[in-house]
Amino acid sequence: MKAFKISEAVVRRLPVYLRYLTHLQQMKVKTVSSQQMGETLDVNPAQIRKDLAAFGDFGKKGIGYDVDYLINKIRQILKLDREIPVVLVGAGNLGHAISNYNAYMHDNMRIVAIFDVDRRKHGKKIVGLPIQPMDALKQTIQEKEIRLAIITVPASAAQTVAEQLIDAGIKGILNFAPINIHTEKDVRIDNADVTSSLQSLAYYIHE
Amino acid sequence: MKAFKISEAVVRRLPVYLRYLTHLQQMKVKTVSSQQMGETLDVNPAQIRKDLAAFGDFGKKGIGYDVDYLINKIRQILKLDREIPVVLVGAGNLGHAISNYNAYMHDNMRIVAIFDVDRRKHGKKIVGLPIQPMDALKQTIQEKEIRLAIITVPASAAQTVAEQLIDAGIKGILNFAPINIHTEKDVRIDNADVTSSLQSLAYYIHE
Repeated sequence: MKAFKISEAVVRRLPVYLRYLTHLQQMKVKTVSSQQMGETLDVNPAQIRKDLAAFGDFGKKGIGYDVDYLINKIRQILKLDREIPVVLVGAGNLGHAISNYNAYMHDNMRIVAIFDVDRRKHGKKIVGLPIQPMDALKQTIQEKEIRLAIITVPASAAQTVAEQLIDAGIKGILNFAPINIHTEKDVRIDNADVTSSLQSLAYYIHE
Repeated sequence: MKAFKISEAVVRRLPVYLRYLTHLQQMKVKTVSSQQMGETLDVNPAQIRKDLAAFGDFGKKGIGYDVDYLINKIRQILKLDREIPVVLVGAGNLGHAISNYNAYMHDNMRIVAIFDVDRRKHGKKIVGLPIQPMDALKQTIQEKEIRLAIITVPASAAQTVAEQLIDAGIKGILNFAPINIHTEKDVRIDNADVTSSLQSLAYYIHE
């Protein structure tokens, strides 16, 4: 298959389609139309057809998409058809919540190592994984070939932690600390900032 | 001032500008150029100038934007220049983390009530707020005139909780449960889904 670049907007929408399709699969639904998907997900059906057509012609006129087939296809496109190890730094409440949630999801994107700067936490376990000291970060990331990280440390520590992660070989970071992490390197950083999300929502509640 | 609609993309970018500007303010920085902002935030400087010019001509050629002035202006535009009460449903690890974080931020967007279905949690306090039973949800939302909600319940409960919230008058929901909440009403729902964010990131780490 020829490799091609997918736009950032599509890369953001595909996981949303995937989540809905997985829900349909659990409900034993076999086919779905772009119309139905669009209504549920609040995306223009024409947009959905366009997004999916870019990867081949999956839909059948009057029948729609085969749910199982489309799930496999999107997982392939997003390269989720393999085990993806993830490291988490920051074993506070949020770190606990995300680790528990991740273990519960039985996803193949799985937290395999947890780190924290607080020595009182070292050795304690979250979902079976011991909380490790930061000294062990680089070696663990390299040994387990981890490329993806979640940061759940306070804002004041986030930039330093990000630099340690990037130095160890991390290529993608989901950052929950309320600051923008800055990097010169070719690393993808996604800020999952609760305050910013609430601020965007706040705009609409007054309309 | 004439009311005008702001595009969704701009409503998403303004909180990011605001966060960076607030950081500059804390560092006692007085002015900033669109070039500097763009580099730090990974946004095209021309885009920043365009976004901000839509609300008036704030920048001065060769000097840049006045940080304090721009902060006040963006807060006005996003209607953050007033107290915004928020309700949280789901007092698990994630609910705890978000409540603590919100209290720590000293923001004027403030969690003022917390609910959970589990009666063993009722009366226990998070950041000084008692966890209340779901029976009290509607009355509290109406009495405190709350329009914004955060959902941190399991996926299986999220749709029901959302319907109870919307029925009580909620207009904006930040949903952390890993399902798409569906509504016919004119309610804004933002899904803060960790799995979807990781899946988007996973695409890039293989590039």
